[in-house]
Amino acid sequence: MDAPTRTTASIPIHTHPSGNPVGKPDTPYLLNCWYVAAMSRELGAEAMLTRQLLDTSVLMYRKADGTPVAMHDRCPHRFVPLSMGERHGDDVVCKYHALRFDCSGQCTHNPHGTGRIPAAAKVRTFPLLEKYGFVWIWMGDEPADAAKLPDFSELDNGPATGVAHTYMPMKANYELIIDNVMDLSHIDHVHGEIITTRGQLSPLIPPVKEDNNTVNARWEWRQTPAMMIFANFLPDPTAEARGFFDITWSAPANIQLSVGAIQGEGALDLNDTVGQYDLHTCTPASATESHYFFATRRNHIVDDGEYNRMKIEAMHNAFVTEDGPIIEAVQKEMNTNDFFSLNPVLMSNDAAPVRVRRLLARLIAQQSRG
Amino acid sequence: MDAPTRTTASIPIHTHPSGNPVGKPDTPYLLNCWYVAAMSRELGAEAMLTRQLLDTSVLMYRKADGTPVAMHDRCPHRFVPLSMGERHGDDVVCKYHALRFDCSGQCTHNPHGTGRIPAAAKVRTFPLLEKYGFVWIWMGDEPADAAKLPDFSELDNGPATGVAHTYMPMKANYELIIDNVMDLSHIDHVHGEIITTRGQLSPLIPPVKEDNNTVNARWEWRQTPAMMIFANFLPDPTAEARGFFDITWSAPANIQLSVGAIQGEGALDLNDTVGQYDLHTCTPASATESHYFFATRRNHIVDDGEYNRMKIEAMHNAFVTEDGPIIEAVQKEMNTNDFFSLNPVLMSNDAAPVRVRRLLARLIAQQSRG
Amino acid sequence: MDAPTRTTASIPIHTHPSGNPVGKPDTPYLLNCWYVAAMSRELGAEAMLTRQLLDTSVLMYRKADGTPVAMHDRCPHRFVPLSMGERHGDDVVCKYHALRFDCSGQCTHNPHGTGRIPAAAKVRTFPLLEKYGFVWIWMGDEPADAAKLPDFSELDNGPATGVAHTYMPMKANYELIIDNVMDLSHIDHVHGEIITTRGQLSPLIPPVKEDNNTVNARWEWRQTPAMMIFANFLPDPTAEARGFFDITWSAPANIQLSVGAIQGEGALDLNDTVGQYDLHTCTPASATESHYFFATRRNHIVDDGEYNRMKIEAMHNAFVTEDGPIIEAVQKEMNTNDFFSLNPVLMSNDAAPVRVRRLLARLIAQQSRG
Repeated sequence: MDAPTRTTASIPIHTHPSGNPVGKPDTPYLLNCWYVAAMSRELGAEAMLTRQLLDTSVLMYRKADGTPVAMHDRCPHRFVPLSMGERHGDDVVCKYHALRFDCSGQCTHNPHGTGRIPAAAKVRTFPLLEKYGFVWIWMGDEPADAAKLPDFSELDNGPATGVAHTYMPMKANYELIIDNVMDLSHIDHVHGEIITTRGQLSPLIPPVKEDNNTVNARWEWRQTPAMMIFANFLPDPTAEARGFFDITWSAPANIQLSVGAIQGEGALDLNDTVGQYDLHTCTPASATESHYFFATRRNHIVDDGEYNRMKIEAMHNAFVTEDGPIIEAVQKEMNTNDFFSLNPVLMSNDAAPVRVRRLLARLIAQQSRG
Repeated sequence: MDAPTRTTASIPIHTHPSGNPVGKPDTPYLLNCWYVAAMSRELGAEAMLTRQLLDTSVLMYRKADGTPVAMHDRCPHRFVPLSMGERHGDDVVCKYHALRFDCSGQCTHNPHGTGRIPAAAKVRTFPLLEKYGFVWIWMGDEPADAAKLPDFSELDNGPATGVAHTYMPMKANYELIIDNVMDLSHIDHVHGEIITTRGQLSPLIPPVKEDNNTVNARWEWRQTPAMMIFANFLPDPTAEARGFFDITWSAPANIQLSVGAIQGEGALDLNDTVGQYDLHTCTPASATESHYFFATRRNHIVDDGEYNRMKIEAMHNAFVTEDGPIIEAVQKEMNTNDFFSLNPVLMSNDAAPVRVRRLLARLIAQQSRG
Repeated sequence: MDAPTRTTASIPIHTHPSGNPVGKPDTPYLLNCWYVAAMSRELGAEAMLTRQLLDTSVLMYRKADGTPVAMHDRCPHRFVPLSMGERHGDDVVCKYHALRFDCSGQCTHNPHGTGRIPAAAKVRTFPLLEKYGFVWIWMGDEPADAAKLPDFSELDNGPATGVAHTYMPMKANYELIIDNVMDLSHIDHVHGEIITTRGQLSPLIPPVKEDNNTVNARWEWRQTPAMMIFANFLPDPTAEARGFFDITWSAPANIQLSVGAIQGEGALDLNDTVGQYDLHTCTPASATESHYFFATRRNHIVDDGEYNRMKIEAMHNAFVTEDGPIIEAVQKEMNTNDFFSLNPVLMSNDAAPVRVRRLLARLIAQQSRG
């Protein structure tokens, strides 16, 4: 259940005819796929959110019926960010000359001159999917394909007090964030007591499986005691436990991570262990800045809202104070040099992240040829 | 009277033989013309002012007799800004090695070695004209031509308590500032109650007149009540009034704007209306930063110094808090892309600013060929 | 004794096989020579120091036996700065994945997989020499040559209370710092009362001597009274004294400066005068940032530690508040333009610094051809 599969459910895509699709043949990003644009809770009833995604300013808000909208945050007239303007029902009105645009990006009101609306007065909109507590955006020129969103529906299985989401802006290329999660051998060195494997993880050479669209790695080990985040929920918190990590990257930048611990008999999966189902996913802002989103659902004490709040706060703080400074320091040291051009010394623990980098590079190269 | 004409008056040009004229064949700026370098009041008796103009550091100060001086703010010896040094009568002494330069940019004292002054020890100076409360600078290599300064002498007609000047640095290309003033259809949307036309301006398609050197646009309308800045000075502050805007751009970056309101009979000009004569003028600092200067003279309660002070403060604040953030946001969104390369959707209200952009581009192209 | 000569003493070079020597054929820096990397006192028993030298991040620390170590501050695995990690005896452990490196840059422990250490898992190290209160680094690819460190052993002649060192980061190219010291004609204009020559220095045209590796200049004059820093130690503090400066640049960026004053008979050298032996030396961080190091030993009241402390503090403050702002303003005004491309007006007082610039340019050009 940990490896996401292509969903074929008829989920509603909040899409609109695109006003100004701009082909970017030299883009460094995979385009015809879903990126997280925001956490669902970031889009409220009235406010507008602007965020740079794939080098493009994107305006997001919710219609009165709650469905989210995304469009280029740039009036096609004089290039003012529409986010400086105001909502007018489901439309947005530019602050500079009051051109009004509906959710399809179409200009619907021009207070100037005869009021005629120029044929080109359209804002490019972006298809959105709202799932798993996130708003996903499709920034490519091909028709949005809901089936290309991996299935992370495990996040929805259970009460709200068992699930949490968070967001961190990062001054680093998004592939450095993927590297960090795809090679979990860092956790005993970077992180503190609560998620240590006590050195058991590093010696493992995790089996790595790759298909056309995903890369999976899996670790299994024994440690005494179990990770602190699980130990207290096991029969004997101080005794040996078996543990596992199972991670699956899917394009463009999603990593589904399952982790759990068990004492005694049982399978190393989320049915039998005390564990959690996580999603790490990131979206490039630019070549050197990213949006890092994270969601987690645990399978124990799922009704304890206060524990839920404390746990996501602790995980958020670990990203910000432990992973974040290292990843951002690497970005600074690498500057804008290509990773492989710097001749990294690769080891067995790099198998999974390197396969992701190479598969992603192939997918991006294919789109440029296509 | 609103459209400036070429003045032929024998005004004194404070010019000096240029020490180091540097041809800039690839300049993005119109060179052989007058830009505002400073407000007259910025140049005091002793202090030195340094300001980046057209990508060049410029030092300005006043001689003992009050005439202003401008020169490259760079010692030709070791490139120290002369503004770090000290005044020595009408001369300036470099802080680093005490070379002294007179107002013609000529080195007049060298305390080193034999004291011989190298032939090349000259600082490039720039011709200045002080008129209309501003110090105007000529940065081209052709001889300065006072006749090329448009006539804004209406600014001088009346007591000092009826005239005011202000200055705002802007993080935007100067053409975006010109765009803003040349298309006044923005005022009902960007500005507050005091200068609203209550939506009367936007539907108008203003006649635009262009000759070799100027672009003029004019709006006339009725509104109830008149603009707040004029209503209280009309016979019936709450009743309908006729209003007008008349603006004329002249190279490189001057926009003379007249605006007024009237009830009953009379011409829509500054003789008959309650109104004001304004000058918006801006000077590039670099491709993405500008100096925005503004002067205004009103034709009513011209002896009220306290009203004068409050009014220029209000207008300054409107530029800084209302126009400024929009113009700077456009600059950020456009980055250094050429305006037309981004395919703006142009409308009837863009006729005047687009003609200015095209005429200015032609004038700059002509200078490159010349 | 003032002009440094090549030392042939068998001083220990703390060097190690270089892990990853990268040829830089287009470097703007002279490489096969010694630069100061740090003051000796900056490297303590435990702490690690990171500093950008010649566009390269360098990690420095001391081994348990006190010898200093320098290596590229970049783990060859994932490019994390090793300075984020921890000391492990004489080794350093990377924060990210706990690879351990010894002082030769060799990876000695890999906790991952089988523990095999990849052949390429080496960090480039840099030979160091610790002399004269400084740690000197050799960043070129040729074998480090201790004989290439000029002899500044006069700094060591005397008690510690007569010697002091300081350091200032500067936002300027290092050649601008060399220019400043090689042309001492600036001191009457830039500095205050304590080191003025009362205008006696500027008229002198100092003899400049150049050989293949050094440029020397010398000034001698009379002034009344002597420089304040020396006057109180002369027989008659208010009477005329003879003074001298003798400076010798040696590659890449060392200037040994001797200065003294005398009344009555005697030679203008540090044996007979009340004076001091200084070393100005700087190391490029990048094209526009430098590390400025300074050491001074005086030949009078050498046992007064409090005087020593006050004097170095005063000299440090003079660099920071007097020379520094000028040099940094020149950098800003020049931007990244080449000095000679801006057509500086050169005078007799520029003979020494210009010879240094040209000799250094020749040495750098030779290395590119070599």
